[in-house]
Amino acid sequence: MKKPHLFPSRYPRSLTLLLVLFTVILPARANEHHNLTHGNAAIEVVIPFAIPAIFEASPTAGDATLVLRATTLITNSWFDAVAPYHPTAVGVYSNLGRRPANESENNLNLNIALLYASYHALNSLFPHRNDDWRAMLASAGLDPDNNTTALTEPAGIGNAAGIALVAARENDGMNQLGNEGDRTYHRAPYADYTGYAPVNTAYELSDPSRWQPAMTGSNGLFKIQQFVTPQMRITRPYSYHNPKRFRARPPVKSNVRNYGAYRQQADEVLQASASMTDEQKAMAELFDNKINSLGFSAVFASFSQQLSLAEFIQYDFLTNMAAFDTAIAIWQEKARFDAVRPFSAIRYLYGDELVTAWGGPGQGTVYDLKGSEWTSYLPVADHPEYPSGSASFCAAHAEASRLFLGSDQLGYVVSVPQGSSRIEPGVTPAADIELVFPTWSDFEHNCSMSRFWSGVHFLSSLPEGEKIGNRVARYAYNFMVAKLNGD
Amino acid sequence: MKKPHLFPSRYPRSLTLLLVLFTVILPARANEHHNLTHGNAAIEVVIPFAIPAIFEASPTAGDATLVLRATTLITNSWFDAVAPYHPTAVGVYSNLGRRPANESENNLNLNIALLYASYHALNSLFPHRNDDWRAMLASAGLDPDNNTTALTEPAGIGNAAGIALVAARENDGMNQLGNEGDRTYHRAPYADYTGYAPVNTAYELSDPSRWQPAMTGSNGLFKIQQFVTPQMRITRPYSYHNPKRFRARPPVKSNVRNYGAYRQQADEVLQASASMTDEQKAMAELFDNKINSLGFSAVFASFSQQLSLAEFIQYDFLTNMAAFDTAIAIWQEKARFDAVRPFSAIRYLYGDELVTAWGGPGQGTVYDLKGSEWTSYLPVADHPEYPSGSASFCAAHAEASRLFLGSDQLGYVVSVPQGSSRIEPGVTPAADIELVFPTWSDFEHNCSMSRFWSGVHFLSSLPEGEKIGNRVARYAYNFMVAKLNGD
Repeated sequence: MKKPHLFPSRYPRSLTLLLVLFTVILPARANEHHNLTHGNAAIEVVIPFAIPAIFEASPTAGDATLVLRATTLITNSWFDAVAPYHPTAVGVYSNLGRRPANESENNLNLNIALLYASYHALNSLFPHRNDDWRAMLASAGLDPDNNTTALTEPAGIGNAAGIALVAARENDGMNQLGNEGDRTYHRAPYADYTGYAPVNTAYELSDPSRWQPAMTGSNGLFKIQQFVTPQMRITRPYSYHNPKRFRARPPVKSNVRNYGAYRQQADEVLQASASMTDEQKAMAELFDNKINSLGFSAVFASFSQQLSLAEFIQYDFLTNMAAFDTAIAIWQEKARFDAVRPFSAIRYLYGDELVTAWGGPGQGTVYDLKGSEWTSYLPVADHPEYPSGSASFCAAHAEASRLFLGSDQLGYVVSVPQGSSRIEPGVTPAADIELVFPTWSDFEHNCSMSRFWSGVHFLSSLPEGEKIGNRVARYAYNFMVAKLNGD
Repeated sequence: MKKPHLFPSRYPRSLTLLLVLFTVILPARANEHHNLTHGNAAIEVVIPFAIPAIFEASPTAGDATLVLRATTLITNSWFDAVAPYHPTAVGVYSNLGRRPANESENNLNLNIALLYASYHALNSLFPHRNDDWRAMLASAGLDPDNNTTALTEPAGIGNAAGIALVAARENDGMNQLGNEGDRTYHRAPYADYTGYAPVNTAYELSDPSRWQPAMTGSNGLFKIQQFVTPQMRITRPYSYHNPKRFRARPPVKSNVRNYGAYRQQADEVLQASASMTDEQKAMAELFDNKINSLGFSAVFASFSQQLSLAEFIQYDFLTNMAAFDTAIAIWQEKARFDAVRPFSAIRYLYGDELVTAWGGPGQGTVYDLKGSEWTSYLPVADHPEYPSGSASFCAAHAEASRLFLGSDQLGYVVSVPQGSSRIEPGVTPAADIELVFPTWSDFEHNCSMSRFWSGVHFLSSLPEGEKIGNRVARYAYNFMVAKLNGD
C-alpha cells in the first residue's frame, strides 16, 4: 500500500532543500492544521518543533551524547506509540495491546498517537519549553489537555506510550534530572556524578599522553572544557547489556613513550591541516553537526525510499538508537584511555618551532606558525580523543541504514554555496560545491576522515570508532526486529 | 545657557523608564533622522546602538573589565571629539585646536563630532558589527564614508579624535587585538598573556585559601571558569601611573590557617543566604548588571540635573574612566591575593553536613542542604574574590558623581515588577517593589552589600573595594579637570 507523500514525485535531493523544508516551509504552515490523515507528523510537525530545543542546548548540535539521547527518546516515543497498529510489534517500554488493521488504513491514528507520545518525551527532555510542546499539538489540531490513557483511542495510546517511556528513561544513568548522587537542591541536569577529573589542566600538559581540556570562548570570555557527560558510559543501553563487549585497541601512538609513533601521528594531522581543500572543510562542517548529517540523511533516505509512516518511524528510531548505544560504548573507551587530542600533542612537540598549517579563518596555509599556536580547523569537542565519537556514530548510522534499507545505495547530495562556511564565512568554499554521497559507505568514510582533516582526531582513532559503531548497529537492528516481532 | 532636553519637564525617574527609552522608543526612532541641533546624540543614538554589542559579549553585562573598557573608550571618544568646542579643553589622545564659540551655540557640531568619533571607537571595539555602526551614522543623517579629517569641520574633528583614540588604545595592554605575546595567527582578542593559572581546579580545592574556578553551564554543557582578563592589571590607566599605590589589606580571614576567622566569614555568608529578602535579591540582580546600574544611573542623573550635552559627556566619561582605572588596581589585587570565593569555602567547611541556606530558584530557605551543594544566589563572577570588583566600581562611580555633580543627592528609583527576577522568574519579587536610592552613598552601600547578600563575596572584601574605588575616583576627577583646563 503506497501512501501519498509530501513530495510524491520529487523528493528533496539535498540538505539545502531539507533545511528550507524545516526552517521555512513547515514553520510557516504551523498555523494551518496538519494533515493527520495522509501526512507524516513525525517529520512535518515534531521535528520542526524539536529542532530549536536541540540547538538551544548545543548551538552546532555538536554535543553528541546530549543530542543523541534527545533524538533517541523522541523516536522511541514514536516507535512505542505506533506499535499497537503493527501486526506484531510491542513498544520498548510498553505493550499496549493490538489495534484492528482498519485503524491503520491511513496515517490518522498513528499520527495522533505519535504526537501525544512526543509531547511526553519532549516535556520530559525540555520542560522549560512546555509552551512549544502545547503549540505543537495545537498545530495538529490536537488538545494538549487531553490526558486520556484509554487504549482504544490513539490519544490514549500515545499518552500511555509516552508516560511509560519517560518513566523508564528519566533515571537511566544520564542524570537528566540532576538528582544522581542523592542530590536534592541546586540540581544540575546531566552533570557528571562519576567524579571524572582530567590529569592535565588547560594551562599545563603534565602528561602528554592524556586528554587536556581546551580553552574555548571568544572576546575575552574564555572557559575551559569539561568532559561532557562522562556518565554516558554507565547509561542504560537498549540493545545490549554490557558495553565491555565493545573494546577498542589501546591508542599506542598516543602514548608519548612511543615517541616516534607519537610524533608521526601528530605530523599526519599537521600535514592534513596544511593541505585542507574546500571540499574537506565543507565535509568537516557538515559532519560536525549531527542533525544536519545524521538526522537529515535519514529523512532524505526515507523520502527517496518512499517509506511509509510506520517504516520511517522504525528506521529513524533504529538509526538513533544505534548511535545512542554506540555512544555508551565509545564513552566507556574515551574515559578508559583518556587520550590526548592533536592540538595538545602538536603544541607540546613543536613549541616555538615554526610549522606549516592552516593559519586561521581566511588565512589559508601559512608557513610561519608557531607550533604552540596550532589550532584545529574545527573547534575540538569536549571529550577525550580516542576512539572517534563521530566516526562511530556515522558508522552506526550507515550500518543501521544498510540493514534496514537492504542496500548500501544512498544518493545524497549536499549543496554548499560559495562562502557558506561557518568557520570561514564569506570565504569558503571559494565556489559553490556539491558533496555527493552515492553510498552509505561513502557517507561513513567521509564522516570519519573529516574528523582527521579538520584536526580534531588522529588517524588511528577513526577505524576503532567505526568498528564499534558498525558492530553496535547490528545489535540495535536485532533489538528492533525483536520488538517488531513482539518479543 | 539652558538647552532643550529630551524630557524638558519630566525626566525618567526610574530604570524601567530608561529601559523603555533605550529598548523601545529610541530604536523605533532609528529610521527618522536624529535631531542633531537640539538632541543628545550620545544618549539618543550611540548608546542604543552600542548596548546590543556590549550585551552580545556579556549577556548580563557582568564581565566588568570588558564592559568598562568598551564604555570608557566610547565616552572617551565623545570627550575628545567635543574638546575643540570647549573654551579650554584638550582631548585625552588629541589636541585638535579650538573652534569659535558660535560653533557650539547649539548641539549640532558637537553631535556630529561625537558620532564620527564613536564610529571609530565602535569599529575598533566591535569590528564584526561594522554594519551597525554605519547604520548608526546613517540614522543621524550622516555619511559613514565621510573620511575627512579637516579640523575646520565637525566630521573631521570627530574622525581625527576617533582615529587618535583608537591608535592610542588598541595596544594598551588589554590585548584587544589578540596580538600580545608576538602572536600572528589564531589571535584571541582579550586572551590572557600573563600566564595566570589557578592553584585549584574545579575538581579539587587543594588550597582552601585560594581561588577555585567554578563549574558553570547548564543542560549538560558545563565549562570551567578562567580568570577573565588577568592582564587588566597591566593595562594602561588614565589617571595615575602605577597601580601599586592602591593596595588592599591582605584578606586574613580567607587564609584557612586562621581557621576560626575563615569559618566565621563563611558562616556570615551562609546566614545571609538563609535570610535573603526580595529586596536584597532585586538589588543583587540590579548591581550585577553594570549597564543597568552604573550606566543608567549616570544617564538618570544627567536628566535630573539637566546637564548640557557637553556636561553629560564630561560626566559620563568621568564615571566610566574612574571605574576603568579602579578595575586596573582591583585586578592587581585580585591577582596578588588570588582569594577563595564563598562557595569553595562553604563546601570545604561543611561537606556532607546539612546547612540552612537558599535552596535554589523558587525553593526559598531550606534546612537540609548539604554543605557541598551550597550555591550562591548570583552566579559567581570569573575572577578571584578579594577585593570586590563591584563594590569598587560602584564606589568609584558614586565618588566621581559626587565630585562632578557637587552633591550626594541622587533620588534614583528602580521599579521591580512582581516576578521579574532573572534568577527566580515568575516568583521573585512576590509583589512589585521599588528600590530607592536617595543618595549616591545609598547607591554605593547597597551595591556593596548586594555582593554579600547574594553570596559571591565575603564581608571584608567590600570596604577594601570601596576604598580603592573612592580613591581612584579622585584621581580620575583631577585628571579630567586637567584636560578641561587644557593641561
